[in-house]
Amino acid sequence: MSDDHGDVTGAMTFIFEAGVLKRAARTGWWFAGVKHPESIAEHSFRTALVGMMLAAMEGADPARVSMMCVLHDTQETRITDIPHIARRYLTAAPNTAVTADQVAACPPAVADTITAAVTEYEAQETLEAVVARDADKLECLVQAVEYRHQGFDNVQRWIDSSRAALKTASAQRLADAALAGQPLAWLTSPSSQVERS
Amino acid sequence: MSDDHGDVTGAMTFIFEAGVLKRAARTGWWFAGVKHPESIAEHSFRTALVGMMLAAMEGADPARVSMMCVLHDTQETRITDIPHIARRYLTAAPNTAVTADQVAACPPAVADTITAAVTEYEAQETLEAVVARDADKLECLVQAVEYRHQGFDNVQRWIDSSRAALKTASAQRLADAALAGQPLAWLTSPSSQVERS
Amino acid sequence: MSDDHGDVTGAMTFIFEAGVLKRAARTGWWFAGVKHPESIAEHSFRTALVGMMLAAMEGADPARVSMMCVLHDTQETRITDIPHIARRYLTAAPNTAVTADQVAACPPAVADTITAAVTEYEAQETLEAVVARDADKLECLVQAVEYRHQGFDNVQRWIDSSRAALKTASAQRLADAALAGQPLAWLTSPSSQVERS
Amino acid sequence: MSDDHGDVTGAMTFIFEAGVLKRAARTGWWFAGVKHPESIAEHSFRTALVGMMLAAMEGADPARVSMMCVLHDTQETRITDIPHIARRYLTAAPNTAVTADQVAACPPAVADTITAAVTEYEAQETLEAVVARDADKLECLVQAVEYRHQGFDNVQRWIDSSRAALKTASAQRLADAALAGQPLAWLTSPSSQVERS
Amino acid sequence: MSDDHGDVTGAMTFIFEAGVLKRAARTGWWFAGVKHPESIAEHSFRTALVGMMLAAMEGADPARVSMMCVLHDTQETRITDIPHIARRYLTAAPNTAVTADQVAACPPAVADTITAAVTEYEAQETLEAVVARDADKLECLVQAVEYRHQGFDNVQRWIDSSRAALKTASAQRLADAALAGQPLAWLTSPSSQVERS
Amino acid sequence: MSDDHGDVTGAMTFIFEAGVLKRAARTGWWFAGVKHPESIAEHSFRTALVGMMLAAMEGADPARVSMMCVLHDTQETRITDIPHIARRYLTAAPNTAVTADQVAACPPAVADTITAAVTEYEAQETLEAVVARDADKLECLVQAVEYRHQGFDNVQRWIDSSRAALKTASAQRLADAALAGQPLAWLTSPSSQVERS
Repeated sequence: MSDDHGDVTGAMTFIFEAGVLKRAARTGWWFAGVKHPESIAEHSFRTALVGMMLAAMEGADPARVSMMCVLHDTQETRITDIPHIARRYLTAAPNTAVTADQVAACPPAVADTITAAVTEYEAQETLEAVVARDADKLECLVQAVEYRHQGFDNVQRWIDSSRAALKTASAQRLADAALAGQPLAWLTSPSSQVERS
Repeated sequence: MSDDHGDVTGAMTFIFEAGVLKRAARTGWWFAGVKHPESIAEHSFRTALVGMMLAAMEGADPARVSMMCVLHDTQETRITDIPHIARRYLTAAPNTAVTADQVAACPPAVADTITAAVTEYEAQETLEAVVARDADKLECLVQAVEYRHQGFDNVQRWIDSSRAALKTASAQRLADAALAGQPLAWLTSPSSQVERS
Repeated sequence: MSDDHGDVTGAMTFIFEAGVLKRAARTGWWFAGVKHPESIAEHSFRTALVGMMLAAMEGADPARVSMMCVLHDTQETRITDIPHIARRYLTAAPNTAVTADQVAACPPAVADTITAAVTEYEAQETLEAVVARDADKLECLVQAVEYRHQGFDNVQRWIDSSRAALKTASAQRLADAALAGQPLAWLTSPSSQVERS
Repeated sequence: MSDDHGDVTGAMTFIFEAGVLKRAARTGWWFAGVKHPESIAEHSFRTALVGMMLAAMEGADPARVSMMCVLHDTQETRITDIPHIARRYLTAAPNTAVTADQVAACPPAVADTITAAVTEYEAQETLEAVVARDADKLECLVQAVEYRHQGFDNVQRWIDSSRAALKTASAQRLADAALAGQPLAWLTSPSSQVERS
Repeated sequence: MSDDHGDVTGAMTFIFEAGVLKRAARTGWWFAGVKHPESIAEHSFRTALVGMMLAAMEGADPARVSMMCVLHDTQETRITDIPHIARRYLTAAPNTAVTADQVAACPPAVADTITAAVTEYEAQETLEAVVARDADKLECLVQAVEYRHQGFDNVQRWIDSSRAALKTASAQRLADAALAGQPLAWLTSPSSQVERS
Repeated sequence: MSDDHGDVTGAMTFIFEAGVLKRAARTGWWFAGVKHPESIAEHSFRTALVGMMLAAMEGADPARVSMMCVLHDTQETRITDIPHIARRYLTAAPNTAVTADQVAACPPAVADTITAAVTEYEAQETLEAVVARDADKLECLVQAVEYRHQGFDNVQRWIDSSRAALKTASAQRLADAALAGQPLAWLTSPSSQVERS
C-alpha cells in the first residue's frame, strides 16, 4: 500500500492509461474493411448509454449497469481488443487479473469500487451484469448497421453473432428495431418541446 | 416496464442519434491545431471513468456519477459542441429541453431515468452532480496534457480553465498529479499479479 | 484604431483565425455517417469556383461572387458550423456582427473590403449575392452526390434541401446535371490540347 | 450566355473534377512528416482570403485577386501537387494547357472567364497576379508556422522558401508578423461588438 | 565515393527518404473518391507478397520477385505517384535515374544491389521482372475490389486497366478469383491447425 | 490438398486476408499517443527495404532477407499486433502455426515457399534470418525517431528497446546514424544525375 500522495499519483496513472482507449481501435472492424474504426472508448460510451436504457426497460439498476459498461473493456489498454479469430491462437489471463494490476496503485476506495464492478460483470450472475453484456452486444450490432449505411457491405457476421448473444427480451426487441430502422429517423422526429413553447 | 412497439422504436431512434457522438468532434481542439480531435463519445467515456474514481475518493455514489457523466454531453447530437468563444454569439436552450426532445419517444421508464439524471446534473445541487462536473473538467485537463505530449503547444488555456473550474479536493489533487505526471508511467508499473503468480 | 504595426498584426491574427476553417468540419455530414467530413475551407473553396462559373452563366460579376463565396462561412471560426437541427435550440448573432469582431484589428482597407462583401452577401439583394448563395447550396448538393458514390446512403435530405433552395436557372440546371451525372466522367473526356499538339 | 444542354453537363463535369482538390494532399508536407496534410482545396481557400486582404493593403482589386487565388492550383486535379524535388525529374505542360482541357466542354462564358483569370495569373504581369502569387506563398508560410505549433519540427525550409518568394511589402510585413505571432492570439482579442451591446 | 562513416549516413538518409512512402498516397484513388487512400508503402507491401506467390506459381524466383516488388515504386519519394491522367501533361525521367540519385551516397554494396534490381525490373526482360509487374497490377485490382466492398462505386476502371495489363496465366486466374471472391472468406476457412491439435 | 481451381481461390483468399495488414495498426504507438499509427503493412514494407540494405552490408542474400521481412508480421491478420505489455497476460501459438493455417488452401508451391521462409525467420539460425530481424528492430527505431520529429515526445522506450535488440554491426551503426541524423537530409543531397546531364 502507498501513502496518500502515492495513491493520487496511482489514480492519475490509471487515468492516463485509460487514454489509450481513445486511440485504440475496435479491431474487428479492420476485417470488415474499416481503415479507422471506432475506438474502444467510443464503443464503451454508447454501451453505457444503451445499458442504462436496457436496465430501465428490464427493471435493473441503470446506474450500476452504466458503470459496469464503462469498465467492461478497460482491460484492453493492456491486451488490446482481441478479435474473434485470434482466440484460435491466443490464451488470455482473466480480465479480473488485468484489472487487479491496473488499480493496484490506486487509492483503496477506488480500487475496491472498480474491482467489485469488474468482478460482478465478469461473473455474469446478476441481472445488472447480464444487461451490461447485452448492451455490449447490442451496441456492436447497431454499429454494424451504421457501418452498412456508410457503405461497408461485409458486416452481416457482426450483426448475426451479436444478435445471437442477446439474453434479455428488451435487447432482442431493440435489435429487431435496429435492423428495421434508419439511423437518421430522429432528424424528422415530431416537433420539439422548444418549438412547441 | 413497457412493451409498446413504438416505445422500442423510439428507444432505438435515440440510440442511433447517440451514434453521432462517435463522429462529432470536441470542437475546442480545432483551435489548438488538432485536425481530427477526440470525439464527444471518447471524452464522455473517460469522464465516466474519472467520475466513478472521484466519487470513490469523495464518498459519493460512483454508479450515479458514472451515469451522469455518460449523459452529460448527450445533448450535443443536436447542438454540437459549442466552443467557448461561440458563447459571445449564441444563446442556447437549456440542456434539459434538448434531453426532453431526445427521450420523448422512448419508453417511459427510459425517459424518466435519463431525464432525472440530466436534471440532477444540470442543477448541480448534489455531491454526485458536482463530482460529475469535476470529472468533465478534469478529463479535459488530462486530454490537454496528452495533446501537449503529442506535440500541440497551444493547450495551456484549456489546462488553466479546467483547473480553475474544479470544486472537489480530490479533483484538484488529481489535476496536480496530471500536471506533474507522465502519460506512459503505467507501462513501467511494478510487476503484475499475473507475473507474480 | 491601431497604428500601422498593430494593423499588420491584426491582419495576421485574422489569417491565423481563418486556419480553423481548415480543421473545422461541415458538421451536417456527421449525421449522414461521415466520421471525418470535408472541412469548411474545402466547401468554401469549391463554392467559390462554382460561384464564378454560375456568375459567368448568369451575367453576374464572377470575381465579386468568388470573393463573397470565400467569405460566406468565415464566421464559423467563432460559431462553428451550426447544423440545421440545432436551430431549434440556438439563437445566433447575425454573421455581420461576427465579421465586425473578426476584422476589428485589421487595417481599415482590409476591414472595409471584407465588411462590404459580407454585408452584401448577407443582405441577398444583389445578383452577385444571390448567385453566391446558390453556389453554396449547389456545392452542398454536389458533395452529397459524391458522398453517395463513396458509399453513404443517407444523403437524400441534403440533396433535396439544397435543390429546393436554388434561385437561379443556371444553378437549377447544374443541379439536374449533377444528379444525372457521374463524378468520374472527366477522366474519359475527349483527347486533350496537349495530346493533339 | 449559353443554354446548350451539353454545356451545362460540361460545367458540371468540371465541378466534379474540382472535387478531387478536396481529397488531394499538398504533397510537400509528406516530407515534413505530415501523414494527412491539408488538401489543395484548403490551401486555396485561405490563399483566396489572404489574397483579398493583401489586395486591399496594396491597392489592388480584391475580388480579382480572390478569383485568381481560387483558380491558381485547379490544374492539380490532373497533375497533382508536384513537390519541389520532383522538378529535377519531371517536365510539365504549362498550367494554361491544363486549364484549356478542363474548360473545353464548359459554356463559353465560363470557359472564357476561367481562361482569362488563369492566363493573367500565370503571366504575372498585373499587380493582381503578383498579389495572388504572394498570397499563395504567404499562405504556405503561415501553414508551416501552424504545423510547427502542432509539433512538426521540420518546417523551416518551407518558411524560408516562401518568405524569399514574396514580392510585395505588405506580404513581407505579414510574414514577419506570422513569424512573431501566435495562432491563438485571436481567442483573447478585445471584447466583441456583441458583448458590448 | 565516400568513406565508411559517410556510407552509413548515406544509407540512413535513404531509409529516412523511404519513410515518405508511408505517408504518400496512391493518388489514383483520390479520383475514385477516397479521401485517405492506402499509402505507397501499403501497396508495395502486398505487391511483394503477391509477387512471391505468383513466382511460386509461375516457377520464378520468389525472393528475387519479392525484392523487385519492394523497390518498384521507391522512386515515388521524389516524383510522387503520378496518376494516369497526368501523363498527358508530364514527362518524367526514367525510374533508373531517380534510383541512381537515391543510392548515390549509400555503401557500394547497397547501391549495387538496389540498382541491379531496379534495372532488372524496369527492363522487363526476365520472368522475375514480368511476374513482379503482374503483382503490381494484380494488387491494384484487389485493392479496387476491396474499395468497392467499402462502398466506393467508381472503381471499375481500375479493375479493367489492371486486368488488361496482366501477362502471366497465374495472375490472370488470380484476378478472376478476386472478382468472383469475397474479402472475408478466410474468416470462415476450415478449422485451424491449432484447433485440431 | 485441393484441385487446381480451389488452389487459386485459396491463394486469392490469402491475398484478401493480407489486406487486413493495410488497415491494422502497429498498436504499440497507441501508447505513445499516436491516434492513427502506421499500418503493419507500412512497417513491413520499409523493414523489407532496410533488410535488403543490411543484407548487402553484411554479406547476406538481400532477396532472401527481403522476402522474410515481407512475411515477418503476416500472422498479424489473425492475432493482430500484440503490444509488449500484453505479453504479461497473453500466451500465443507460434507464428508458424498461424502461417500453416493461412496457407493451407494455397497451391502447394505457394504454401511451401511461404512456410519455408517463415520457418527460417522464426528459427533465427541463418544470417538472413538474423539480418531480417535486425531490419524489423531498426525500422521500429527509425519510425520512433520520425514520430519524435512529428511532435510525439514519448518514444524513447521504443528507441532503447529496438537499439538493444540489434545483433549485426551494420544495424548498430545505422541506428547510431539514425539517432544522429535528420529525416529531411536527403532533400538537400548533392545535385542529381539528371541535373548533371
